[in-house]
Amino acid sequence: MNKVDSLRRDLLAGVDVGGTKVAVLVVNSSYNVLSQVTLPTILDSPQATLASIMQAVQQGVEQAGASLDRVAAVGVGVPGRVDTLTGLVRRAVNLGWEELPVGQLLSAQLGVPCLLENDVTLAAIGAQHYMGGIASRNMAYVSVGTGIAAGLVLDGRIYRGAHGMAGEIGHMIIDPGGSRCQCGAHGCLEAVAAGPAIARLGEEAAVASGNTLLRRYRPVTAEAVYQAARDGDPSATAIIRKVSGYLALALQQLIVAYDVECMVFGGGVSREGDTFLQPILVELARLREHSVLTAEMLKPDMIRTLPSDYDAGAWGAVLLAAEGTVRISSERGSGAALVPFSTL
Amino acid sequence: MNKVDSLRRDLLAGVDVGGTKVAVLVVNSSYNVLSQVTLPTILDSPQATLASIMQAVQQGVEQAGASLDRVAAVGVGVPGRVDTLTGLVRRAVNLGWEELPVGQLLSAQLGVPCLLENDVTLAAIGAQHYMGGIASRNMAYVSVGTGIAAGLVLDGRIYRGAHGMAGEIGHMIIDPGGSRCQCGAHGCLEAVAAGPAIARLGEEAAVASGNTLLRRYRPVTAEAVYQAARDGDPSATAIIRKVSGYLALALQQLIVAYDVECMVFGGGVSREGDTFLQPILVELARLREHSVLTAEMLKPDMIRTLPSDYDAGAWGAVLLAAEGTVRISSERGSGAALVPFSTL
Repeated sequence: MNKVDSLRRDLLAGVDVGGTKVAVLVVNSSYNVLSQVTLPTILDSPQATLASIMQAVQQGVEQAGASLDRVAAVGVGVPGRVDTLTGLVRRAVNLGWEELPVGQLLSAQLGVPCLLENDVTLAAIGAQHYMGGIASRNMAYVSVGTGIAAGLVLDGRIYRGAHGMAGEIGHMIIDPGGSRCQCGAHGCLEAVAAGPAIARLGEEAAVASGNTLLRRYRPVTAEAVYQAARDGDPSATAIIRKVSGYLALALQQLIVAYDVECMVFGGGVSREGDTFLQPILVELARLREHSVLTAEMLKPDMIRTLPSDYDAGAWGAVLLAAEGTVRISSERGSGAALVPFSTL
Repeated sequence: MNKVDSLRRDLLAGVDVGGTKVAVLVVNSSYNVLSQVTLPTILDSPQATLASIMQAVQQGVEQAGASLDRVAAVGVGVPGRVDTLTGLVRRAVNLGWEELPVGQLLSAQLGVPCLLENDVTLAAIGAQHYMGGIASRNMAYVSVGTGIAAGLVLDGRIYRGAHGMAGEIGHMIIDPGGSRCQCGAHGCLEAVAAGPAIARLGEEAAVASGNTLLRRYRPVTAEAVYQAARDGDPSATAIIRKVSGYLALALQQLIVAYDVECMVFGGGVSREGDTFLQPILVELARLREHSVLTAEMLKPDMIRTLPSDYDAGAWGAVLLAAEGTVRISSERGSGAALVPFSTL
């Protein structure tokens, strides 16, 4: 590829692969969004899943009015353990992938360098980018959705841990007497405070009480519980208070562990916005009231949520692609077609 | 200082300043221990405390058969918040220091460059050095004594957090219904599992039961509880089981937060050796039994204690002095009199 060709590849794509949907973001060299596409994830076989990812990328590029030979690099966030150097996915349980060279396969079939990373890590990078200055050195991104996990920026760098498992806080045992988790333990954070736990508590309340708005929603979802709480339902409000207590406790444990400047919530449940955040802040205020140290370390303005229309995972994937482009160009000895974001 | 003079300064001193004692270690350029001295910490005034530190250093150097002009640098571990670049101690509650330029004062009066660092951070460096290879990249040092705190090595570097408070895990709320902590909160880890908590539980058991060996020890100390447990006393054994359950839970929370390769216990209570460690391993085995993830991430051979005669804090201070010596020498343009440990 000569320099002219390299400069012609002026687009980047970011892909967030979830268990239910594949989201694609295509941007130009000024990071203006040209298209946004979401397709269902096909889970029939590992090959079918790969095909659905490629289809989503192609559709995104088409909607941007371009073709794949304009794309300099594709960043891909995968919900699992990824060898970022080789693009090998070691294990992605929800996708049924195990020891699959996804980076190589996608790169070969799309004809574009595809860079892989764990999805929560990319969402943390996306969140850091959104937050700007206040999250540049030390930040924990906490995703609350079907599960709970944290992505970490420590001393300005992404921290993954010895085995890429740092921030697996969904399995922090927060209430040893609590519900049983899929991992087998009792009272893991995600077993008592993630979306399915909220839905289960809602369902139980709907069965137990004849007098709750939750009976209108069967089966009861996490969204339904938040909606009923907004409508003033006492059962739903009590559930959210309980869940928020667990999340506040988890934040307290994380702040003394990491001493970050900023904690940012993302993920499906956090899209409830203020109905999600305010009850957590109320529980944190209670903790602060009792403890000087918590009051000092865990100030309310440190806790944020991302706007519900900001796709942190896909933006993180775009930034990964940007970083990769610079690396690829410098390996080839040609000039970089894109400059990386200053936050990277 | 010319090079000859620089080479003549062939000793290093490490000082661990605690609330009750000052420990000094003097080594030569091969890191052989020439002397070890422990003096009580004088707490009558900030000046008296400084004087007792200087006295301990002087006594250590004398016992090494040398004088202060042979010392290239002194590393000092302080139990509080330290500005490592300037040697300013921001706050050390147990020493009654606040905004005190300890590094400057000690350097001027001893005539030797004195470098300061938080004591738990230095103990982590000392522990890392002792553990060698297995702790070189990602390690948590957990000190259990009068309080509980962790020192962190993440991705091969000391991690301090945004405000130097990372690893303040003594104030992790581990049991919201538990005893009140000095910080004001209920159920902080150190309020339910540090030395004073063990002593208090022992005292309560001695009052409540006519049938416990703990009645022999009044007031009951943490050491007494461990001794009574070794002697087969059921009340003491129950206390240690309870405390070990909290410590095991804390390790579980830390492993999913940090994903370290190795967790090393130090501090006064950990000097009980196997009586301290084995009950924690039993509780961890129970957690592992229930959870695949914990079983995978928290293997028993990752959890260690330091030998009771290894002073991790003083060794960390020696290593800080060594690093400082290299820095000082290179600033002066002379050759380094000492090479740093490869682990630094």
